[in-house]
Amino acid sequence: MIPVPKGFTFTTVAAGFKKQDRDDLALVLCESECAAAGVFTTNLFQAAPVLVGKGMLAKSPRARAVLVNAGQANACTGQPGIEDCAATLVMVGEAAGVPADAVLPMSTGVIGPRMDLGKWKAAMGTLAERLGTATAEECARAIMTTDTFPKLAWATIRPDVPTAPAAGNTGEAVVLGMCKGAGMICPNMATMLGMVLTDAAVEPELWADILRRAVKASFNAVTVDGDTSTNDTVYALASGRSGVEFTERNAGALYEAVLQVCQDLAYMVVQDAEGGTKVLRIGVAGAADDAQAELAARAVGHSPLVKTALYGKDANWGRIVAALGRSGAAFDPDRVSVTVAGVEIFRNGAPLSGDFDALLKPHLEKRDIDIEVDLGAGEGFFVLLASDLTHEYITINADYRS
Amino acid sequence: MIPVPKGFTFTTVAAGFKKQDRDDLALVLCESECAAAGVFTTNLFQAAPVLVGKGMLAKSPRARAVLVNAGQANACTGQPGIEDCAATLVMVGEAAGVPADAVLPMSTGVIGPRMDLGKWKAAMGTLAERLGTATAEECARAIMTTDTFPKLAWATIRPDVPTAPAAGNTGEAVVLGMCKGAGMICPNMATMLGMVLTDAAVEPELWADILRRAVKASFNAVTVDGDTSTNDTVYALASGRSGVEFTERNAGALYEAVLQVCQDLAYMVVQDAEGGTKVLRIGVAGAADDAQAELAARAVGHSPLVKTALYGKDANWGRIVAALGRSGAAFDPDRVSVTVAGVEIFRNGAPLSGDFDALLKPHLEKRDIDIEVDLGAGEGFFVLLASDLTHEYITINADYRS
Repeated sequence: MIPVPKGFTFTTVAAGFKKQDRDDLALVLCESECAAAGVFTTNLFQAAPVLVGKGMLAKSPRARAVLVNAGQANACTGQPGIEDCAATLVMVGEAAGVPADAVLPMSTGVIGPRMDLGKWKAAMGTLAERLGTATAEECARAIMTTDTFPKLAWATIRPDVPTAPAAGNTGEAVVLGMCKGAGMICPNMATMLGMVLTDAAVEPELWADILRRAVKASFNAVTVDGDTSTNDTVYALASGRSGVEFTERNAGALYEAVLQVCQDLAYMVVQDAEGGTKVLRIGVAGAADDAQAELAARAVGHSPLVKTALYGKDANWGRIVAALGRSGAAFDPDRVSVTVAGVEIFRNGAPLSGDFDALLKPHLEKRDIDIEVDLGAGEGFFVLLASDLTHEYITINADYRS
Repeated sequence: MIPVPKGFTFTTVAAGFKKQDRDDLALVLCESECAAAGVFTTNLFQAAPVLVGKGMLAKSPRARAVLVNAGQANACTGQPGIEDCAATLVMVGEAAGVPADAVLPMSTGVIGPRMDLGKWKAAMGTLAERLGTATAEECARAIMTTDTFPKLAWATIRPDVPTAPAAGNTGEAVVLGMCKGAGMICPNMATMLGMVLTDAAVEPELWADILRRAVKASFNAVTVDGDTSTNDTVYALASGRSGVEFTERNAGALYEAVLQVCQDLAYMVVQDAEGGTKVLRIGVAGAADDAQAELAARAVGHSPLVKTALYGKDANWGRIVAALGRSGAAFDPDRVSVTVAGVEIFRNGAPLSGDFDALLKPHLEKRDIDIEVDLGAGEGFFVLLASDLTHEYITINADYRS
């Protein structure tokens, strides 16, 4: 049973944005105003819903709802796209009985085309009728594109420090997250959209800080193809309806719960990577600093040669060290060690001897493969989740528009 | 008929380094001392022949020969690997009648294993017997790994400014280049090795400068998979035997010839990219500076989504602009334009309208596809050649060791 934070309801509608006959419009609604935060794509090309959502949060860190549509990215559509986005918020606000400026938008789909406002208008009657009738799982399903399964994760928090015995304090707060994404990008495809909902009570500034830190260590630490979408967005809403309050004093527990939820979702994104058969956990330690560790981890996680080798169930250390060597991270090659699936195969700049093919064979058959690197240059550390690169990835992405 | 610069001969031997029964050892020998220069991989892990070759050129910019072996990379082999490399130079120097310290080494093959000096020793008799009996084309063939064709290019120079009427001045100098490479890397695979031979007379310092500039604008401006080998090397030898002299005063003509040869070879590397079906010429203009143009071009040329789209014959501008937007280059999205195969499809941050699928269809069937980007932010410019990303690339690289 998926726990739903107090105050939130879900609505889904088949608005006809996607060719398939399925729900492709989702609304998450809270019965009261929430502390709201968002993290957005760093791509210079930002879709209309990203620009609109950023503007709304800058004006007020409060919101009542998140609106998601699949099938129409509303990206590279200029000022008309921004006006289209605003028009959908007005329509949905009216149908749901909330102010338009309390509804935060996210979109995914093909880049370039304008929104079809006729389809939006036609869907509003059904939206109003079905308000609050969907489950969280149906909501997560409605925002999917090339995803093969809906992505949900949750955590509950019982603070050690008792919070004020306010009316309705249940002593427990729930954090529920959901997301979609199967490639890190795509203009035409698989933008990463996510949301984190909680009934914890928390001030917007602290909530925004928690979201930012959790996203950095989860969604921003995975890679499928190294591309970043025009539409990537994660929103977080905190309703406070559990009565459990978090302040600077006890924020650690809320951060841990949000981090856990975001990391679980991020894992699922890599697990569901387009054509992927592996989840590579690339941990780089011993870098001069964390930024250098990230450089090294990303060079390995983005290397087509490493990704195809693991797809071929080959712990090809030569490709791993070659990627480290060109990563831009500074280190002495003679101090580098590499461990794959718990087996050290490279130490102090040279391969160890042993029948590693036999030792590693059972590990390389698994979905999850750990690659641990020590650069021997300092205390810097970073962990990246990455997919492998497969025939199926090529098929999906070479044939997408046809 | 391939023109051979005066003074050079070629020798090839089947030393048994590669499984196939074919020549895999090549020696380029000059009858007199040459001005010698080299450009090497920037990977922190540098193979033994890279370290040895660099050391030799630092000691003296003169050489008599280039020795190339396929099938044994001699990388990540530590001090023993350096000693192995030195031993092969002594053996080959004796067999060819030149000092060991006049022979520059290059290797490609599987990373990690030591050289099999027994095989080297066994091959020396044949090497001595066959000295100078191979053609340039046979030499280019002996250095191949996964390459599907030998790569040679040449140019002749007749300086406008008459050079001193030295004995044997033919009035014409020849530049001959050859290389191997079908992936930009590989530990296990397809290192880029190249050499440029000329009978022009030129001082080592000027020759090194010409090589460095030409490599920057050719071999360093192509990408197959974004990886950089531990063994990448380009050597250049100038024998002076044509009697045609180049100095600072008239070096432009020699530079142009070397550049042309290197660019022709670089094109062939991308043409022969592992599994590749396309050569993408990505020209980025209007960047703040050349370095930013290179960042933007590389983001497009490395993007798996762009590369798979072109493989699928889809001029997917959304993926191109998304790659530009995450490249790190600074620009105003509203000033960006994109032209594919001469057809402008995106201008001032938005797609143009038109039946581009029909217009572009015949162009996208071709092997060569031009992508021209204008960032509208300055005068910076860079051109990158890139391959596409295909099912066959995955097959080659996932199955390599098996």
